[in-house]
Amino acid sequence: MKGVRLIEIKEEILSDNKSMAGELRKKMQERRTYLLNLMSSPGSGKTTLILKTIEKLRDEFRMGVIEGDIAAMVDSEKIAAQGISAVQLRTGGFCHLDVAMVKKGLEAMDLDKLDFLIIENVGNLVCPAEFDTGATRNAMILSVPEGDDKPLKYPLMFTICDVLLVNKIDYLDYENFDMDAVRERVLNLNPKIRIMEVSCKTGQGIDTWITWLKDEICAFIGR
Amino acid sequence: MKGVRLIEIKEEILSDNKSMAGELRKKMQERRTYLLNLMSSPGSGKTTLILKTIEKLRDEFRMGVIEGDIAAMVDSEKIAAQGISAVQLRTGGFCHLDVAMVKKGLEAMDLDKLDFLIIENVGNLVCPAEFDTGATRNAMILSVPEGDDKPLKYPLMFTICDVLLVNKIDYLDYENFDMDAVRERVLNLNPKIRIMEVSCKTGQGIDTWITWLKDEICAFIGR
Repeated sequence: MKGVRLIEIKEEILSDNKSMAGELRKKMQERRTYLLNLMSSPGSGKTTLILKTIEKLRDEFRMGVIEGDIAAMVDSEKIAAQGISAVQLRTGGFCHLDVAMVKKGLEAMDLDKLDFLIIENVGNLVCPAEFDTGATRNAMILSVPEGDDKPLKYPLMFTICDVLLVNKIDYLDYENFDMDAVRERVLNLNPKIRIMEVSCKTGQGIDTWITWLKDEICAFIGR
Repeated sequence: MKGVRLIEIKEEILSDNKSMAGELRKKMQERRTYLLNLMSSPGSGKTTLILKTIEKLRDEFRMGVIEGDIAAMVDSEKIAAQGISAVQLRTGGFCHLDVAMVKKGLEAMDLDKLDFLIIENVGNLVCPAEFDTGATRNAMILSVPEGDDKPLKYPLMFTICDVLLVNKIDYLDYENFDMDAVRERVLNLNPKIRIMEVSCKTGQGIDTWITWLKDEICAFIGR
């Protein structure tokens, strides 16, 4: 009797994706285009944060946005309405972006004219965390109405991000959300993560985000 | 205002997969290894049909099996217990096989020692139909207890297959299953498909399948 050879497909695909992501990261470093991968649940405020970031940084950097979405084009149209280069990746049911998809988005843009690109990933706290997009940095949003238990339920997402924006802090008075518990849970998973409390609606805390991002991009593009 | 460039990711992925499948099909033709992609819902009798096929053809051809499964290894162990080369692709949640996954399975086998390989796809009537595996032929099973409406509900699967095995015909007395309606619905979608009525349990109709398959393989490998 011969044995069965077992191949773990998901691990192989993740490993192929990881090596492609490493290559893309290197290429983007050489050409000095900063890529930010922004993730969150649906409705946490990714598009609103991007619009705020465009408003604050459009005069300092040449910006572009790659929008990942299962079906709609609403978000990318809002961004294009600001006069910013936008590519919409319609995933047709896929619940995350991988590096091959991001590359298709990059190929559709004129990278020589861009210092800084935001990738708005598909709204989902699970699969996008598993697929490295090749971005320079990973950022995520957790909004107050989603609850303070999310780091316990979706640890990988909090583990792989460089920045966590806790958004909708204007809801803190109405929600039973323990910010100290969130900080402790997240730092337990990922001691190096930067945690920022913001409200895209009121503007509170946005300057901290913008300062961090501006310093990041300037260091990266060598300005 | 700049426009939004739209990229249909699913179409791009399917198109990349299709061109890779064409290359694999050509390569397998050159080396004369016949690949059969077997698809159906879960529990329709894929593994039982493979075991019957091994029993009938193991003395005539050097056979191997690539098993696609979300998590379990039960099916591949049954096949290895027959002394047949088996590779298990554990998809880790993916609901179909694509050509990149099949290639990983082929790389784990000694193709110089094989005339004929069966790919047991993931049990699912939807996604496997969208992804060409690079197989020489596509076969599917519809079992009587699943009902005669399946060609109406999953037309693509019936459209892309070369053979339909209607399995578990020993259930025909107990089920309200209209075989004529199935034939008409399927031939409407795909006039060239071969339809065979079988029962893997009683052995009824299996010889028709074996004769068809044997002729196919002999023509392909030039025997």
